[in-house]
Amino acid sequence: SRELFVLTYGALVAQLCKEYEKDEDVNACLDRMGYSIGIRLIDDFLARSAVRKCRSYSETADVIAQVAFKMYLGVTPSVSCSSATGNEFSLILDKNPLVDFVEELPAERASLCYCNLLCGVIRGALEMVHLAAEVSFLQDRLKGDAVTEIGITFLRKPEDRKNRKNK
Amino acid sequence: SRELFVLTYGALVAQLCKEYEKDEDVNACLDRMGYSIGIRLIDDFLARSAVRKCRSYSETADVIAQVAFKMYLGVTPSVSCSSATGNEFSLILDKNPLVDFVEELPAERASLCYCNLLCGVIRGALEMVHLAAEVSFLQDRLKGDAVTEIGITFLRKPEDRKNRKNK
Repeated sequence: SRELFVLTYGALVAQLCKEYEKDEDVNACLDRMGYSIGIRLIDDFLARSAVRKCRSYSETADVIAQVAFKMYLGVTPSVSCSSATGNEFSLILDKNPLVDFVEELPAERASLCYCNLLCGVIRGALEMVHLAAEVSFLQDRLKGDAVTEIGITFLRKPEDRKNRKNK
Repeated sequence: SRELFVLTYGALVAQLCKEYEKDEDVNACLDRMGYSIGIRLIDDFLARSAVRKCRSYSETADVIAQVAFKMYLGVTPSVSCSSATGNEFSLILDKNPLVDFVEELPAERASLCYCNLLCGVIRGALEMVHLAAEVSFLQDRLKGDAVTEIGITFLRKPEDRKNRKNK
């Protein structure tokens, strides 16, 4: 049952909104917190999921969506590759359980990325498996978009890392 | 999987510790937050659990331990009645999942009730079913106690309320 988590997350965001006047500062703080969580959560994830080493960015994005989101949030986003270079992916959430108790953002918080913790978590967890990535919300139903979309841009190709190791 | 929740809760406590110098202020804030959560969580709890109306404090304490804790935290505390008047109960937790990632409290945070949110949640939820109660940690393994013990003191007897209603 996720409700206690979802409400506790809401309390955290509300607390940060009290503390920081600017949405950007709240967003940055949530991202930092998420990062700290991600670098610890990855061990739990690898132990429980027993996923094998991913051999491509595409496989990694699929594992995040189908295994990690399912495990920790109980939902499975759809994944699409959004660049010709094959390093940019979108996770599309029709339903975002973290906002179950949120009706809409207050007018004075229009730039708040309410779920920004998730971006930090993904970024931190990926870094621990040696994948540098930028992660951010591209669309958000809380802001009136049709879906919620998290963008993941992997920053280096595996081949580059492999080549560097072999030097 | 509770790990994301547990780590997010840790981030919340850490944030409050940054904000408030005194442990008492952090504890009070966690309790207030928990209360706000409890008054919302009760609807979810009643809907999912389909528990019937409790006919005694003892039954209420059992439902909190066996149904609510199990549902939201995945553990079942044991319950003991600790007063001759029958309105004081203890929930005894051998294992507290909320502290899974906490080794010990830092020396300068010796009075922190790390899980104080739970007390607020119980208090808020009980209030919504017209049961006034005081809820607090009596023992805490994080502070070196052998078990973690949450004390619940119900403040009015059901008979009193019934009589008052009939006036």
